[in-house]
Amino acid sequence: MRALTEVSVINVGLERFAGPLKTLGVPVVQLQWQPPAAGDAALGQALARLTNHPRVEAANATAFERYLNANPVLEGVGEAARDIPGMGGNKRVLLHSGPPARWDAMCGPQRGALIGAVLFEGWAENPEQAERLLAEGGIELDSCNHRNAVGPMAGVISPSMPVWRVRETRGGGLTFSNFNEGLGRVLRFGANGADVLARLKWMRDTLAPVLSKTFDASGPIELKPLLAQALHMGDEGHNRNVACTSLLFRKLATAAAEHRAADEATLAEVFRFIAGNDHFFLNISMAACKAMLNAAAGVDASSMVTVMARNGVDFGIQISAFPGRWFEAAANYVEGLYFPGYGPDDAARDLGDSAITETAGIGGFAMAAAPAIVQFVGGTSDDALNNSLLMRRITLGANSGFTLPMLNFAGTPAGIDIRRVVDTGILPIINTGIAHKAAGVGQIGAGLVRAPAGCFLKALAALAERVGEDDA
Amino acid sequence: MRALTEVSVINVGLERFAGPLKTLGVPVVQLQWQPPAAGDAALGQALARLTNHPRVEAANATAFERYLNANPVLEGVGEAARDIPGMGGNKRVLLHSGPPARWDAMCGPQRGALIGAVLFEGWAENPEQAERLLAEGGIELDSCNHRNAVGPMAGVISPSMPVWRVRETRGGGLTFSNFNEGLGRVLRFGANGADVLARLKWMRDTLAPVLSKTFDASGPIELKPLLAQALHMGDEGHNRNVACTSLLFRKLATAAAEHRAADEATLAEVFRFIAGNDHFFLNISMAACKAMLNAAAGVDASSMVTVMARNGVDFGIQISAFPGRWFEAAANYVEGLYFPGYGPDDAARDLGDSAITETAGIGGFAMAAAPAIVQFVGGTSDDALNNSLLMRRITLGANSGFTLPMLNFAGTPAGIDIRRVVDTGILPIINTGIAHKAAGVGQIGAGLVRAPAGCFLKALAALAERVGEDDA
Repeated sequence: MRALTEVSVINVGLERFAGPLKTLGVPVVQLQWQPPAAGDAALGQALARLTNHPRVEAANATAFERYLNANPVLEGVGEAARDIPGMGGNKRVLLHSGPPARWDAMCGPQRGALIGAVLFEGWAENPEQAERLLAEGGIELDSCNHRNAVGPMAGVISPSMPVWRVRETRGGGLTFSNFNEGLGRVLRFGANGADVLARLKWMRDTLAPVLSKTFDASGPIELKPLLAQALHMGDEGHNRNVACTSLLFRKLATAAAEHRAADEATLAEVFRFIAGNDHFFLNISMAACKAMLNAAAGVDASSMVTVMARNGVDFGIQISAFPGRWFEAAANYVEGLYFPGYGPDDAARDLGDSAITETAGIGGFAMAAAPAIVQFVGGTSDDALNNSLLMRRITLGANSGFTLPMLNFAGTPAGIDIRRVVDTGILPIINTGIAHKAAGVGQIGAGLVRAPAGCFLKALAALAERVGEDDA
Repeated sequence: MRALTEVSVINVGLERFAGPLKTLGVPVVQLQWQPPAAGDAALGQALARLTNHPRVEAANATAFERYLNANPVLEGVGEAARDIPGMGGNKRVLLHSGPPARWDAMCGPQRGALIGAVLFEGWAENPEQAERLLAEGGIELDSCNHRNAVGPMAGVISPSMPVWRVRETRGGGLTFSNFNEGLGRVLRFGANGADVLARLKWMRDTLAPVLSKTFDASGPIELKPLLAQALHMGDEGHNRNVACTSLLFRKLATAAAEHRAADEATLAEVFRFIAGNDHFFLNISMAACKAMLNAAAGVDASSMVTVMARNGVDFGIQISAFPGRWFEAAANYVEGLYFPGYGPDDAARDLGDSAITETAGIGGFAMAAAPAIVQFVGGTSDDALNNSLLMRRITLGANSGFTLPMLNFAGTPAGIDIRRVVDTGILPIINTGIAHKAAGVGQIGAGLVRAPAGCFLKALAALAERVGEDDA
């Protein structure tokens, strides 16, 4: 935060007015301000109508309470074809991250990942064949979020892939995510070479059976206490998952040995794979967040955001009042730190379903839990703290199940309210990785990105229409 | 920190002078002040002579640099009789925490632990016999610190116990600690029943061989990077060790499976034991700190503290100028949070060698790394931050190998300077467990305790004498 000195000027509006004063040595603070509803008169009226609207308030209280009460547990390991609706019966279907996208408009990493998935499933013999098949519409493509699934980055899930099964035990159903492959050349960044496919096969044929046997013998794992503990250990559940991964590993390794889930050589392979990937837990965190937000979806007139997801071209949100309906705008570019040899010109736009973590109040919203993340995404530890404080201004409340030690155990700000986003112009902060724009290069950095304003403006207009109609 | 309002008075000295002003509604801030050197004129002169003394300054620079450069690695598992000097040859010798203590003046938990160790070694058949043997001087007793060893709480090490072997690779030797037994009824809190002895036997006969085989096959583990990472995950290395334990477990479980250190049933037992004890790493952290401080010991005229240790009766320190020489004062009682059913009347005095962590700049000095610890020891997260800031005032510098995310990655305050302690009256803050005063009840709480001033005053007098003599 900037401190005001004794003699100073606050400049509201055009920044150039501040110039002459600065030249005279007068301290000037530029107020970060923009008119509500982006200065649009019709939207301004819509915002005014929805602000403090009793139906919206009551709906949000219900949606937020359902989110708070949701209880996701990691039930175990499934298979996409068997568990995810509409993926069985030998259908040629692939899921991807973000709002629905057409093949010819997709970003590089997502195309690369889909080609890899076609090869993995054996539907084509080489990348050219796979690309042709995809371009000709020979494969059904759908958004993960349409099937209660989430996937980081390209987010591609194919029928034979193993998936995490997360059950919401207070009446919700199952949510799913794929398995995390680690860093480097991996499918989720669009790589699809022999090494990538071999790893996916090992994950399907060795890792998944061992984990499946382990879970079947040892029983489900409650995810909220695990996430809560990790928030006290420097994780924020999106871009820092080392604590959650380590805590999960302790449980899994012990249970795997105890229940003889495999011979020692196989156990060693499995342990090495999980222990070698600090982001192993990310996909589980995402499925847990999806479960909590599914619980909040479908409350008529609620302005609470229940999905934020990106396909590398567009950023889409859903709100509780309109389950399944997307409000989209062009995805932003991530601002952050690049790995050596890469820069902003190499970056894809913001990509993946992982913003479901911020939607659920962790990730960028819980940055105060993870000050060490600034070494990865840039900024200072005060920025981390201030980001959590800033998100309070656009959220419905705090989640006392996820507390922030640095803020003396205040709950994470949670339940993004599109009205507050439009009113304040403060956009949700997302911690995320940066993918190379070309398929298969992989992660080239990490940083912060904001959700684009357009999604929230469109959702607000739609909600105002709905609430207005009903009132009429 | 208390903010000054526009019109206010700072009152120095007797607090009652502030009373009338407060009555008049004038804001008064009472300065927490005490005269340097506890108001003792001779000590004041000694302090003046040592302050900015070129020989002391140069010696401290050397000692502090040696501490910073020390590189402890966890080499593996040994046996006290084989590895610790003077413990072999079937000698009846037991080590204990803190400065040397005589049997008849020892605290309850330490007596209980020594009785248990006599039974564990088979030198007596029942507790009464063991007690008689100890009372009659039939067992040689010595301080762990005299043998490059450290042990938490009662700190008892007997010849057949397994020990951690930590090697300082920049020219230092080995340091040792015993294995952590977990919480509840354990030897280090003075318990010595059949369950306690059975666990110790299992640790010796099963756990230690498996870990020994694992280390022999997989090689040593660098401890400073592990501790540094844990400080970014909410540990402070004394009273919070969950991150370090989890990170170590990841390495050990993978290596144990990879090198087939045991059959699966035994591996499962070992994994369950380690994964079930968030403090498993504490003893390793202590041996690492001992190694770093050993490197700093023995620099003539240095006023840097190299040992702080308590035997439940006395608190002893050593400074670099006088290796092996104790300066003692009565140990304080810990202020903190008690487990249900216990209170201050049940507590033993401050106990154990674990204050070696604070001596090395972690533990209470690194509380800013572990704001979540206040849920265990009391206070607010601001207190955690402020404790680290306060310790800057009595230390020689910062350890950039151990950084504090909440303080924007400043190094931990390290290298306690007895001159600054005596000058400011600020006493080292220690995070610690609270033992029941009776043998064998176990831990009854946790909190903060200060080192007693007397140790530092005595050490200062001795150093002034030495430096004065040499100058004459």
